[in-house]
Amino acid sequence: MDNFTFYSPTYFVFGRDTEKETGRYVKRFGGTKVLIHYGGGSAVRSGLIDRIKASLDAAGVAHVELGGVKPNPRSGLVYKGIELCKKEGVDFVLAVGGGSVIDSSKGICIGACYDGDFWDFYKSDRFVEKALPVGTVLTIPAAGSEGSPDSVVTHEDGMLKRAAHGEPLRPAFSILNPELTFTLPAYQTACGATDIMAHVFERYFTNTPEVEVSDRLCEALLLTMIKETPRVIEDPCNYEARANIIWAGTVAHNDICGVGHAQDWASHSIEHELSAQYDCAHGAGLAVIFPAWMKYVYKHDTDRFVRFAVNVWGCKKNGTDPEKTALEGIACVERFFRSIGMPTSFAEIGAKEEDIPKMAKKCFDEINGDTTIGNFVKLGEKEVADIYRLALNN
Amino acid sequence: MDNFTFYSPTYFVFGRDTEKETGRYVKRFGGTKVLIHYGGGSAVRSGLIDRIKASLDAAGVAHVELGGVKPNPRSGLVYKGIELCKKEGVDFVLAVGGGSVIDSSKGICIGACYDGDFWDFYKSDRFVEKALPVGTVLTIPAAGSEGSPDSVVTHEDGMLKRAAHGEPLRPAFSILNPELTFTLPAYQTACGATDIMAHVFERYFTNTPEVEVSDRLCEALLLTMIKETPRVIEDPCNYEARANIIWAGTVAHNDICGVGHAQDWASHSIEHELSAQYDCAHGAGLAVIFPAWMKYVYKHDTDRFVRFAVNVWGCKKNGTDPEKTALEGIACVERFFRSIGMPTSFAEIGAKEEDIPKMAKKCFDEINGDTTIGNFVKLGEKEVADIYRLALNN
Repeated sequence: MDNFTFYSPTYFVFGRDTEKETGRYVKRFGGTKVLIHYGGGSAVRSGLIDRIKASLDAAGVAHVELGGVKPNPRSGLVYKGIELCKKEGVDFVLAVGGGSVIDSSKGICIGACYDGDFWDFYKSDRFVEKALPVGTVLTIPAAGSEGSPDSVVTHEDGMLKRAAHGEPLRPAFSILNPELTFTLPAYQTACGATDIMAHVFERYFTNTPEVEVSDRLCEALLLTMIKETPRVIEDPCNYEARANIIWAGTVAHNDICGVGHAQDWASHSIEHELSAQYDCAHGAGLAVIFPAWMKYVYKHDTDRFVRFAVNVWGCKKNGTDPEKTALEGIACVERFFRSIGMPTSFAEIGAKEEDIPKMAKKCFDEINGDTTIGNFVKLGEKEVADIYRLALNN
Repeated sequence: MDNFTFYSPTYFVFGRDTEKETGRYVKRFGGTKVLIHYGGGSAVRSGLIDRIKASLDAAGVAHVELGGVKPNPRSGLVYKGIELCKKEGVDFVLAVGGGSVIDSSKGICIGACYDGDFWDFYKSDRFVEKALPVGTVLTIPAAGSEGSPDSVVTHEDGMLKRAAHGEPLRPAFSILNPELTFTLPAYQTACGATDIMAHVFERYFTNTPEVEVSDRLCEALLLTMIKETPRVIEDPCNYEARANIIWAGTVAHNDICGVGHAQDWASHSIEHELSAQYDCAHGAGLAVIFPAWMKYVYKHDTDRFVRFAVNVWGCKKNGTDPEKTALEGIACVERFFRSIGMPTSFAEIGAKEEDIPKMAKKCFDEINGDTTIGNFVKLGEKEVADIYRLALNN
């Protein structure tokens, strides 16, 4: 196990009706004037924004609002939010929505405390050291941004999808009410579930030996997702299944199952080019990329893929032919994604073979001159293109 | 799943040589004058206290010290520490040791900010709302106090072993260097491992349905302990196994695997009377009590004990006779404890049958007039006595 630090100071408030406590928590964490940031009209139409405003009013917290965040959030709205915060003297940003809204909010939090361009932290490895505090009311379990120190935004100039990192980006509090996810359509639910599982995969496939705690925690979260996801696809108002998914999504990405070992994250980079290029859902892109990535890398550590097949997917270990077990596990991943309605091939998300060279190249733009991505297996531009090609024919 | 809040803001610093950073972290969390609190001479003899003092000096942090904490820490030294803090203007307590030292430190932190008797918070359910900040350098993985909001102290007046709770008792930071645990004797290592597993048991056996995330996280930690504990008993300087145990011990008790459902904690109460009475190690007492408790309660939810047997101990599910599988799981617990050198019967820890009525009665003293303990099965004085009796003949 490698040396590490782990610091997850977010105050999680979980359960029915918890959004009514928003005002109290904003106040507790020092907010006096809040920007309520959200996406499309559903948060408004459902009455959620009104309930939150009432809660803020009751706590004596002033507020302004900015809606309109789109999936794969764009820099344009972030700039607008920053301007609004500076003009209005906002001291706390409240994200009401899923990962896109939260990540857009975090971009605003960075920019509101910074004289330069907020994008400076996305286009480089420079850590965020100062930002306005952010709180969240989560409506889509997927990105894990409600407990993570990360934000992913797409810059409209070149459609570059990039991430910023830093402890100040961990939300002060996150309100997780499973009922708010009842209205999520099946497809979006499945995309979220795929994203959650992908966050675990990125941590599970590591070369660091002897990380039994993390390995077991990763397996625990995957087993949960495999059990609960089909239940919510079948019955969208199943509170218990929704509850387990939303909590698994948070735990999957607050890094408790990722400490003490190298993580991979190549598949996320490879996917980002897909969703930036074709505006597909991030989860759908991951369902396409991950089986291809697994087929490409499994021989690097067949034992780990055998463990994955046995402990996560319940495959029987083939003593004489471990490779067969490894491949069976990967087939289970693909079959599972398909069973919850996810695409697993390039064509299904509108991706085109002729774009592969361009996307493979873009993966390496603006990442400080690194010539590889990933850790489990280091991948250069050629290897990334090979993985896109494998995804063509999944 | 029940509504819950989860807040674990401790900054964990894990790995080799990390104790050398103590000064930096004390400073980061606002300490300017530190009480270094520790146990017997081993922390001094090994040079650990000197390394920590050097680190504090380098960071410009003043310090006083108070050693002498004994296992099952006593109120007398806590009173002494409180006096010292008040006299010296201490603003941060640094615990260097295991759970006893940390819990004694937390008692001091409470009393140093309180005009009344620190024991007020132990003898009642009153939550601690203010305390000096505490940091830890952990040398014994067991109690989980390095990440928990709890403290257990024994009052010399009546030998009452009681717990206090409150968010200010969560350490500001905890330094976990597996190397510092290399010198732990096998018996103490096994006691610690038993305590860690017991913390998971107390959370796993619940009546709250549909808590798949927690169930799986609990199983993950138990599987880790079952794998790693025999390895350190065999080879005390196995860094990797020590590392997995120390981290599992922290995760087992920061409550990430206990949220959203009722927890039990009867066995801890039942054990506390043993260690208060006979001054046996807490872990040894738990190894005696838990198999007895399990045998006493398993029929309340045979399915859960079957799941435990299958998922944790790898038992084969007996389709026609689930009770048989449940009992097989309990037998595995007992066998495992014995295999790592733990006692599993009353006599082995010097306990006597004639003390049973007195201990069963004491379990209920000063707990605000409650007539039962536990949640999975609520136990009165008679049932507690029955469990002690079952432990007689384990």
